[in-house]
Amino acid sequence: MERLLRKCRIQNRLVRECMAECLGAYVLILFGCGSAAQVTTSQQQNGQYLSINLGFALGVTFGVFVSRGVSGAHLNPAVTLSLCALGRCSWLRLPFYTFFQVLGCFLAAATVGLQYYDAIQMFGGGQLTVTGPTATAGIFSTYPAGYLSLWGGIVDQIIGTAALLLCILAVGDQRNTSIPNCLQPLLAGASVLVIGISMGSNCGYALNPARDFGPRLFTYIAGWGEDVFRAGGGWWWVPIVAPCVGALLGALIYELLVEVHHPPPSAGGPSSSREAPEEKGGVELEGVKPDGGKPV
Amino acid sequence: MERLLRKCRIQNRLVRECMAECLGAYVLILFGCGSAAQVTTSQQQNGQYLSINLGFALGVTFGVFVSRGVSGAHLNPAVTLSLCALGRCSWLRLPFYTFFQVLGCFLAAATVGLQYYDAIQMFGGGQLTVTGPTATAGIFSTYPAGYLSLWGGIVDQIIGTAALLLCILAVGDQRNTSIPNCLQPLLAGASVLVIGISMGSNCGYALNPARDFGPRLFTYIAGWGEDVFRAGGGWWWVPIVAPCVGALLGALIYELLVEVHHPPPSAGGPSSSREAPEEKGGVELEGVKPDGGKPV
Amino acid sequence: MERLLRKCRIQNRLVRECMAECLGAYVLILFGCGSAAQVTTSQQQNGQYLSINLGFALGVTFGVFVSRGVSGAHLNPAVTLSLCALGRCSWLRLPFYTFFQVLGCFLAAATVGLQYYDAIQMFGGGQLTVTGPTATAGIFSTYPAGYLSLWGGIVDQIIGTAALLLCILAVGDQRNTSIPNCLQPLLAGASVLVIGISMGSNCGYALNPARDFGPRLFTYIAGWGEDVFRAGGGWWWVPIVAPCVGALLGALIYELLVEVHHPPPSAGGPSSSREAPEEKGGVELEGVKPDGGKPV
Amino acid sequence: MERLLRKCRIQNRLVRECMAECLGAYVLILFGCGSAAQVTTSQQQNGQYLSINLGFALGVTFGVFVSRGVSGAHLNPAVTLSLCALGRCSWLRLPFYTFFQVLGCFLAAATVGLQYYDAIQMFGGGQLTVTGPTATAGIFSTYPAGYLSLWGGIVDQIIGTAALLLCILAVGDQRNTSIPNCLQPLLAGASVLVIGISMGSNCGYALNPARDFGPRLFTYIAGWGEDVFRAGGGWWWVPIVAPCVGALLGALIYELLVEVHHPPPSAGGPSSSREAPEEKGGVELEGVKPDGGKPV
Repeated sequence: MERLLRKCRIQNRLVRECMAECLGAYVLILFGCGSAAQVTTSQQQNGQYLSINLGFALGVTFGVFVSRGVSGAHLNPAVTLSLCALGRCSWLRLPFYTFFQVLGCFLAAATVGLQYYDAIQMFGGGQLTVTGPTATAGIFSTYPAGYLSLWGGIVDQIIGTAALLLCILAVGDQRNTSIPNCLQPLLAGASVLVIGISMGSNCGYALNPARDFGPRLFTYIAGWGEDVFRAGGGWWWVPIVAPCVGALLGALIYELLVEVHHPPPSAGGPSSSREAPEEKGGVELEGVKPDGGKPV
Repeated sequence: MERLLRKCRIQNRLVRECMAECLGAYVLILFGCGSAAQVTTSQQQNGQYLSINLGFALGVTFGVFVSRGVSGAHLNPAVTLSLCALGRCSWLRLPFYTFFQVLGCFLAAATVGLQYYDAIQMFGGGQLTVTGPTATAGIFSTYPAGYLSLWGGIVDQIIGTAALLLCILAVGDQRNTSIPNCLQPLLAGASVLVIGISMGSNCGYALNPARDFGPRLFTYIAGWGEDVFRAGGGWWWVPIVAPCVGALLGALIYELLVEVHHPPPSAGGPSSSREAPEEKGGVELEGVKPDGGKPV
Repeated sequence: MERLLRKCRIQNRLVRECMAECLGAYVLILFGCGSAAQVTTSQQQNGQYLSINLGFALGVTFGVFVSRGVSGAHLNPAVTLSLCALGRCSWLRLPFYTFFQVLGCFLAAATVGLQYYDAIQMFGGGQLTVTGPTATAGIFSTYPAGYLSLWGGIVDQIIGTAALLLCILAVGDQRNTSIPNCLQPLLAGASVLVIGISMGSNCGYALNPARDFGPRLFTYIAGWGEDVFRAGGGWWWVPIVAPCVGALLGALIYELLVEVHHPPPSAGGPSSSREAPEEKGGVELEGVKPDGGKPV
Repeated sequence: MERLLRKCRIQNRLVRECMAECLGAYVLILFGCGSAAQVTTSQQQNGQYLSINLGFALGVTFGVFVSRGVSGAHLNPAVTLSLCALGRCSWLRLPFYTFFQVLGCFLAAATVGLQYYDAIQMFGGGQLTVTGPTATAGIFSTYPAGYLSLWGGIVDQIIGTAALLLCILAVGDQRNTSIPNCLQPLLAGASVLVIGISMGSNCGYALNPARDFGPRLFTYIAGWGEDVFRAGGGWWWVPIVAPCVGALLGALIYELLVEVHHPPPSAGGPSSSREAPEEKGGVELEGVKPDGGKPV
């Protein structure tokens, strides 16, 4: 029995990782969009904007706790992309991780839709609308504020995701401040909290293609209709494209200004992860990943 | 003297655990329902919905600190049930733990009732009512929102408690992210915080048969009368039954998607806790429990 | 020089401890009453009730950080009294600690009065009043809500301080959950936070004779006059007497229900701190205290 | 390649530190002023005063995480000044650190101005004003409340910065409570949080010449005009001068009341950092700084 199990585990490594990414993204959206649903349908009686910030932050924290030991807890295609670009994750994983991250977000949005079915019906008067005073689509995915120009939204998402990567890479950089594994999920959550507090006003800090597209797909199917893609002047593609640009930019800034300049850990040893990137699991988000870089 | 004390301790192991569970549940409700009493009777002047979320979260944290080293700090019959089902707690303990958890919650509700006696009298105009604008029964136990259907409430409690177990098992899974003992109570509190922020709107996130039934019994005896069982269409049994279903579901999801797939800790040793479940104290919630699985 | 300094340090041990208690209590009130001043004089524009809870909680945290390594960071005569009763602090220290705790609170209240002089003048229209819509005495010390009976206030303070001691002793009990030194100040702050959230409504959770009497003395001298002792039906003595009763009660409950029942740390060694209480510095609040029990 | 990199690193030590200080200060203002922009332009819909406190606190936390291992994460000329005065940082660094701290704050203010361009235009009706109901200059730098006298503002900034240094030095004092490296950034953030909660009302808790002057310069250039220097009766110089006085005062108080009295770490060894101050990197804010005191 034990031998069978071990064999099975080895063979299914990528599957295991994809399941963990899926469950982690599920937890993130379950708590994040759940808090948005609570604030919206209770008309700020049972929470305010800060509650939504806390919901997404703790959603990230527990999403990372759920999946970190298995897959490294990216939970975000833009993060996976940046780690691939930095050589800390194999490019092969990118499409698989992305698909299961989107799937997890989609399923979580469906769960929130189920849990708040009565409340959404009551709040919207039986209508599922994307705009207007009883709009409920904003519970699930992001829409820009009325004043925001398209370029303003793109810039906002680039800056926000760059800030996210800057924080994540700094926290994970063991040659800067050395931080134990158990605090990484809390600090990942704290970085999402502060970005929500400081950069959520313009267009809702998606920062994550999967977090936005998965739930948007759910609203499209579940009855909000094509408006979810039309609203905000066809806004839907911005939180998919801009976070990828921002994540690469943020990673570049941290590497160029800080990480590349660290003195080598020991006088004679190999200098840094830039020497053997493909074989080394990313330090910052990947705790227990003994054979992370191996071809699957 | 010392020898006597030691003898006494060994003989009273289950009693010790029950006393700890009782005190832990007492602390949880003392702070949780206390914060609800403060927000209600001050008409949101001295706190808002987020304060109640924080009160229950920190109530859980300190309730766990009070009892963790002795009994493992379940504080919740649904958690005890799940750990029994996972083989991390003996079934014998289930009825004892449950009784003392309910007792602790009952006594804490009585303490809150005493401490806020003047405030409740003032707020309710001398009346103890279960519904209406000056209702005070909601301080102690949960009642569904007006729009919520019975099935909606059951689904809500199942999802909420499943999310709770998912978080608790992930945080306690040392082969996922390894977390030191001292952080477990804080993360248990954080999981209750985020559930309160994202799933509290429909029917008040009981998630715990003892947390709901103990205080409800107090309100029944203390003068709120039979309405506490009649209100919400006979709602009272839902937060008893649904959390048990949800806890088992959440445990199942985490086991199937993550924990069962962990590679064995060492190549030759016994694979996992699934081999000898009855003899091993659950890792995630039970800190110092050297002879936890022995027949009492 | 070095030899002189060392000699001087040894001779001044109690003085060092008193200075640390004084500075710690100063920090506690500086942040605690400061946040109350900010909320009151800005008419809740720059903070709400939760801000005051956070202000006192973080005030306790940093007050403990400032003094913990030197004096054990009691910061509260009721805590010192309980630790003396438990045999973890010499009775000789009680009067000294109490005096310097009150002094620190008095000086901090004076600093807050100085910092918010313009704001208090503006808010009160040049009047320093204890009651009424522009009362400012409540910034400094506690006054009961209008509905509260005297017995209700006494019960409230006893329950609140008992809860405080319960939390502090549980967190400091290394045979329950073992918690590293660096987290103790944070958890002391968290316990004050949750008590403020759940028990602050009736009469402002003084929990601490020094915290209440020191600032009250300042308001008496600084121009609020004799009303500070007359208001609330001569309320001033309740937050001095009741916390002492509550602290002893809380310590008793934790000892009887949990701590006394811990199994001995090793089979043959001396059982517990109850054997040699006078010679052993209290574990829970006293970090570095190598010769704490010696006669000064 | 590796050898070249290592050589380059050694030669550029001060440059590395300045880049880290610049990036750290950038992160601090990006999140801090970003949260102020969010609260102001959303008219408190997407955050309240507490959000701004959290934004600056977490801004400090992540600013410290970004730069701590390289430069010690001062992020504040007043802190650098105090550490120089205490002999924990070479005086040579003071002008360099200060310049790059101001530069980082300036660049971050420009980023916030870019990210919130549409929102600021919408909120101000196309006008960039320093006073009045649609003023937006307060997003970037501090202005005193209308009731505050000049001396009141100076006293406020001195007390606030003294409290900051008191907290930072206590947290960094390993012979008081010993705190691991990874918690220092969180506690630095917590100290800024509590100061914002308790001392932010009068004139916005700048506490930091760079944090105030850098963004003020940005507003001067970007279109708010000379009013940014004239408003508040020529207020602009107070948050530059007073924090320096306050930082020195706070450092003096902690040293005199606590740190200087610590017993020597071992009976025979050299007593304390006061013996060899110039050669020893400051403990409290400087984690990995192997050759910090060497002439550059």
